[in-house]
Amino acid sequence: MIRVYKHEDGATRIVESVDPAWLTAGSGVRVWVDLDQPTPDEARVLSEVFHFHELAIEDALSELHHPKVESYGDYLYLILHGIDFRASEHCFSTKDIDFFLGAQFLVTVHPGVSRSIGQVAGACSRDERILAEGPGMLLYRIVDTMVDNYRPEVEKLSETLDELENEVFEKPNPQLARRILNFKKDISSLRQIVLPQRDVIARLARREFPLISEQLAYGFRDVHDHLVRLADEAMFFQDRITGILDAHLSAVSNSLNQVMKVLTIIATLFMPLTVFTGMYGMNVPLPHLPGGDGAQFWWILGIMLAMSIGMLAYFRQKNWI
Amino acid sequence: MIRVYKHEDGATRIVESVDPAWLTAGSGVRVWVDLDQPTPDEARVLSEVFHFHELAIEDALSELHHPKVESYGDYLYLILHGIDFRASEHCFSTKDIDFFLGAQFLVTVHPGVSRSIGQVAGACSRDERILAEGPGMLLYRIVDTMVDNYRPEVEKLSETLDELENEVFEKPNPQLARRILNFKKDISSLRQIVLPQRDVIARLARREFPLISEQLAYGFRDVHDHLVRLADEAMFFQDRITGILDAHLSAVSNSLNQVMKVLTIIATLFMPLTVFTGMYGMNVPLPHLPGGDGAQFWWILGIMLAMSIGMLAYFRQKNWI
Amino acid sequence: MIRVYKHEDGATRIVESVDPAWLTAGSGVRVWVDLDQPTPDEARVLSEVFHFHELAIEDALSELHHPKVESYGDYLYLILHGIDFRASEHCFSTKDIDFFLGAQFLVTVHPGVSRSIGQVAGACSRDERILAEGPGMLLYRIVDTMVDNYRPEVEKLSETLDELENEVFEKPNPQLARRILNFKKDISSLRQIVLPQRDVIARLARREFPLISEQLAYGFRDVHDHLVRLADEAMFFQDRITGILDAHLSAVSNSLNQVMKVLTIIATLFMPLTVFTGMYGMNVPLPHLPGGDGAQFWWILGIMLAMSIGMLAYFRQKNWI
Amino acid sequence: MIRVYKHEDGATRIVESVDPAWLTAGSGVRVWVDLDQPTPDEARVLSEVFHFHELAIEDALSELHHPKVESYGDYLYLILHGIDFRASEHCFSTKDIDFFLGAQFLVTVHPGVSRSIGQVAGACSRDERILAEGPGMLLYRIVDTMVDNYRPEVEKLSETLDELENEVFEKPNPQLARRILNFKKDISSLRQIVLPQRDVIARLARREFPLISEQLAYGFRDVHDHLVRLADEAMFFQDRITGILDAHLSAVSNSLNQVMKVLTIIATLFMPLTVFTGMYGMNVPLPHLPGGDGAQFWWILGIMLAMSIGMLAYFRQKNWI
Amino acid sequence: MIRVYKHEDGATRIVESVDPAWLTAGSGVRVWVDLDQPTPDEARVLSEVFHFHELAIEDALSELHHPKVESYGDYLYLILHGIDFRASEHCFSTKDIDFFLGAQFLVTVHPGVSRSIGQVAGACSRDERILAEGPGMLLYRIVDTMVDNYRPEVEKLSETLDELENEVFEKPNPQLARRILNFKKDISSLRQIVLPQRDVIARLARREFPLISEQLAYGFRDVHDHLVRLADEAMFFQDRITGILDAHLSAVSNSLNQVMKVLTIIATLFMPLTVFTGMYGMNVPLPHLPGGDGAQFWWILGIMLAMSIGMLAYFRQKNWI
Repeated sequence: MIRVYKHEDGATRIVESVDPAWLTAGSGVRVWVDLDQPTPDEARVLSEVFHFHELAIEDALSELHHPKVESYGDYLYLILHGIDFRASEHCFSTKDIDFFLGAQFLVTVHPGVSRSIGQVAGACSRDERILAEGPGMLLYRIVDTMVDNYRPEVEKLSETLDELENEVFEKPNPQLARRILNFKKDISSLRQIVLPQRDVIARLARREFPLISEQLAYGFRDVHDHLVRLADEAMFFQDRITGILDAHLSAVSNSLNQVMKVLTIIATLFMPLTVFTGMYGMNVPLPHLPGGDGAQFWWILGIMLAMSIGMLAYFRQKNWI
Repeated sequence: MIRVYKHEDGATRIVESVDPAWLTAGSGVRVWVDLDQPTPDEARVLSEVFHFHELAIEDALSELHHPKVESYGDYLYLILHGIDFRASEHCFSTKDIDFFLGAQFLVTVHPGVSRSIGQVAGACSRDERILAEGPGMLLYRIVDTMVDNYRPEVEKLSETLDELENEVFEKPNPQLARRILNFKKDISSLRQIVLPQRDVIARLARREFPLISEQLAYGFRDVHDHLVRLADEAMFFQDRITGILDAHLSAVSNSLNQVMKVLTIIATLFMPLTVFTGMYGMNVPLPHLPGGDGAQFWWILGIMLAMSIGMLAYFRQKNWI
Repeated sequence: MIRVYKHEDGATRIVESVDPAWLTAGSGVRVWVDLDQPTPDEARVLSEVFHFHELAIEDALSELHHPKVESYGDYLYLILHGIDFRASEHCFSTKDIDFFLGAQFLVTVHPGVSRSIGQVAGACSRDERILAEGPGMLLYRIVDTMVDNYRPEVEKLSETLDELENEVFEKPNPQLARRILNFKKDISSLRQIVLPQRDVIARLARREFPLISEQLAYGFRDVHDHLVRLADEAMFFQDRITGILDAHLSAVSNSLNQVMKVLTIIATLFMPLTVFTGMYGMNVPLPHLPGGDGAQFWWILGIMLAMSIGMLAYFRQKNWI
Repeated sequence: MIRVYKHEDGATRIVESVDPAWLTAGSGVRVWVDLDQPTPDEARVLSEVFHFHELAIEDALSELHHPKVESYGDYLYLILHGIDFRASEHCFSTKDIDFFLGAQFLVTVHPGVSRSIGQVAGACSRDERILAEGPGMLLYRIVDTMVDNYRPEVEKLSETLDELENEVFEKPNPQLARRILNFKKDISSLRQIVLPQRDVIARLARREFPLISEQLAYGFRDVHDHLVRLADEAMFFQDRITGILDAHLSAVSNSLNQVMKVLTIIATLFMPLTVFTGMYGMNVPLPHLPGGDGAQFWWILGIMLAMSIGMLAYFRQKNWI
Repeated sequence: MIRVYKHEDGATRIVESVDPAWLTAGSGVRVWVDLDQPTPDEARVLSEVFHFHELAIEDALSELHHPKVESYGDYLYLILHGIDFRASEHCFSTKDIDFFLGAQFLVTVHPGVSRSIGQVAGACSRDERILAEGPGMLLYRIVDTMVDNYRPEVEKLSETLDELENEVFEKPNPQLARRILNFKKDISSLRQIVLPQRDVIARLARREFPLISEQLAYGFRDVHDHLVRLADEAMFFQDRITGILDAHLSAVSNSLNQVMKVLTIIATLFMPLTVFTGMYGMNVPLPHLPGGDGAQFWWILGIMLAMSIGMLAYFRQKNWI
């Protein structure tokens, strides 16, 4: 789908197609072209009207690219990643959003609906002034929205982390290892998403490109600041999940220890008793304990109890029970 | 709450509001405006009197930002983190303190009471000369106090570390894993707090900004030095806690080993005896041992004792007991 | 084998040998010499016709070199690694491909058939224009093909990773450790292959060498982008395989725990019963339980059942079963 | 304590106090002031005679600072760490030594007796020429002595490491974990001490400061070389101690394995025998084995021996015994 | 021992001593002085004839220095490490070789016979042209030979690694942990040897020093390339040995698991049987099973077999056997 927003003489209108004349310097027109999963036909506007570099167009129309910013003389080509968190699959996923920024135009290309683009497009149709501020400001608004959309997902991660930490100590269970592993994958994804975008935005904030005005650079510095914070949090999460994994292994070991202590206590209590009763079951004349025949059984029971109590006292002293 | 300290003609007074005229070069006035959890009404001074950049004001009034220093032409905008250690929760926490530094003014914004600001404000009301040294010197005093306030908390961490190290060897207990995990989180927090602030202060100490005089740079070099030391200590703590965790795992394994040795010794002692008594309990004619009928039992007991002593000697030789 | 592609006056022909006159500036000839496992005789063209530096020739003819790019004045010498994945051996392996790039010529040297060179050579014979674009463009085409050939192998790695992850939780088996180890080796190889090539291509993309035109640099920027992505994926794979190894160890520990619980439950159930039956097997007068002689056995059985049920209830409460 | 060494007209004398006139350029006097745990009264010489910067004096008189070098215009301020190894506590400890180096003076400040300063002071009183070479050369001599004093302590570490490595395999014992942990702390300390000093000396060796002559820089390059080697050794030690810890854990696991094998062998040998004897102890008519009544017992014994030998053969084949 | 090779007017001769006149610019003489474990008397040539810096001479005559290159104006001082692999001790060891390179001379100092020097010295006596190419080229030849001598030792490491990898899975044994630890030490040594030399050679290859001609720099680039490859291999080896250690730990855990399963199966099979036979050994009237007295025993045996088969079926279903 292709959508064209044109601003001229203080009015923003949605038009059908782009007139190359608008792009000449001094035309006073500002235009935003949004290509949402463009058909090959729609995509032809990139080469035929805007004359972008062949390699950039190829990148924009294919998927799975690394965030980057490249200057092609009088326009910039940016790839950024919008978040697309699918909670059910426990894995951050992202969608490429490609931007071509010129002095008078912004072209955005994305494979399917993008929440951030949608939000800014909505604002843009309601408020005439937004496109009036120029395509750079529009780019900043979209990027700012994209980065803000990361925040709630990161909050969810933080909550999951607290849960895992509690569970590992309170109610350990065999599913924990898998959930910890999945969480680690999420953290890795988050870092993989955030770090290259931070570097791209840093280049915009440092004003490496003359298309970025000083006013705009203040904005990108702010976005950069958010991305730095996200990268920091990802690192902090990684530290914590490593700690949780160690704690989990230590909990498993401890639990094994506990089980083995129970086993040892049981064996130590009953094995001597088995031998003892075995001895009194031997078919040889047995020594007579004090008292009459009826007292024999009770004497034996008494000795067995005494042995058990002695063992238990020994374990208590060793702090096993 | 808003508090305004005004210095003019050698006298420092607390006044009600800020007069924009004071901010013109050559007015000879020096002013410190402290906004403690400002109401929207109070916050309006930032935009209406000082004309700070919109994004900077937004950052200053919201929470949770990354330490940074940014130049906006004739004033600097700094975010630093004051410590707010809540011992009960085993986690360093911090409060943003925001600074706007101009040639004639310092504006501080913070969400709730700040110990460091309080200490410097106290000194400022008692001593006329402090504000007279200029807003840069005032900034240095506040930052220096903030960094000094980290020291006692770091000492506490160091003591906890010594305790954990002792406990892991002297009286291991199942709670240790959790305490080690919590300690690791504290260390991570400390590094996350200190490192970006170290970089911010380094930029001030390197005199990247003309607002920082050489005399002031000496001061910030000193603060930087403290932060470098804190960062070093955090790294050293991390090394040590990793070692403690390894030692804990090794202690658990060793303890498991001990338990298993006890079990094995018990089983090895009593299982053959069980079989032995079992054999004498069989309902078949048994071989007659030397001596009369009464001696049979004692012969059997003797053989069993000899077997046990042999086993124990074997274990002793294997260094198990 | 030696193959020479010559382009002159808009026509590309395959010729027998290289005429040194073609290499003079202004000759208008463009030539690609491909040496596939050259005999010493064939290799002499490098020194006698092209007069390359002795050390570069030595490197080109020997194997196992580190990717690099070196300027020797009016020509560049590059070593890159083409992939040669032998699935059966679970290990990435590579073949050196050496390039000499001059203003009018490209010389490629490789030990045995190279898929990438073959693909480009095929295109080159079919399409006259390819060599017409100059030797730099030809180099770019070969390098681009080489890097594209990495992609399917990396996809295979990604699938193997998903498999391993599933197996470690669903059907753990003793062969897993070996497969994880082999996978780690593959990842290491991948990084070892990709990182130095990324750095070589980055130098071309940065236009450190005047032989690389701006148009060409756009191409190499694109290749660089692919290599950066591969390097990122290798890092991500490494993170994941580390997680899988941890999960495997945790699974083994958990399984040990389960086994031990079974053992402990069995011992705890039957050891007291053994002692109990042993007591009733003693050759001493036994206490008479309520009921007639025939009821004795059933009373004993009842007591034993009650003991077992009690034990099981205890384990249930401890969440062991 | 304050000690002043004054060199004038080729003669070195120990004098009572410092005359500010000596410090004027062209006075031809060279002076070394050594402040050993100075009283506040003695410390006043720093501010009143030498007019050092207030913050530098504060740092010099307090303890626990990070090694650094700072230029204050016509003098340098250095903090370095002398070693103070207390073998009993298994931990490197250090003492700050502070230096103020000017064109005509060297001031050293240290908290208590310093071995290195003592050695150089001794040489200085015996040999007139030492102070004649200028304060820079004196600084170099002290620093060189300080770094040389690290060597024997590092040798001790290396020996301890060899011991630990042997013990972990030859005679593992529960105290090993603690000793390994202590050793790791020592290594961390060593790195923490050496790395920042290496960087300080590197700045002197690079001649960043005009006070350091070329001749002097050769000397500091040599000292830098020693510190680089120490840092390398610390890294190497860390690698080795990590390996030793892994070996220790592996040794504990192996030992557990051995214990469990013994237990399993014992159980497997005797449990079937227990059942077998139990069967012949049942109060039901038993099948008659070949031979007379007296042969029954020996038949049973033979069967039991055969069962045991079979089990042992099975274990031998499994390589357990 | 001291050996002097002198080249003048196209002829190389071995002479007795060095004449300082040869060293003046324009003398046309080229000289190589090789000091092999020089006596103090022989070492005097360094100071008296060549007038090298006192610190450089001290370094050259003592042992155990860090690889480095230093410019002393009109000559360079280099320390490099020749390999001296003692296979029996499983540890790379190296010997310092010191070089002084001037426009007309090369001085080499080494403690005892050096294979590389020996090889080049042999070539030098046989071939007049070698010394004619100048002392720089001679240095390059020696360094190239030194680095080539690393190759076979690295191949041995690679083979050992393959062996260890096989053994860890095929025939695990308790000596493996020690061999892995020793291998790790070797790898650490290799890195410690290679990395600083790589950096030294890189400085020569970058032509930081005017004594190195462009032609010579091509040679050192080639040597640098070999060292980079060695460093890469060391890193790769380290990755692999870490993987092998993990696999070893996992193998030990798995083996423990197997042992415990055997134990559990044995206990689970025989404990119920023990109780069962115990019940029939009780001295109380037992319930009569179907059939005559003689059938009792076989009924009991049948029940016991049925119980065992049931247990085994349970274990089979749990995939334990």
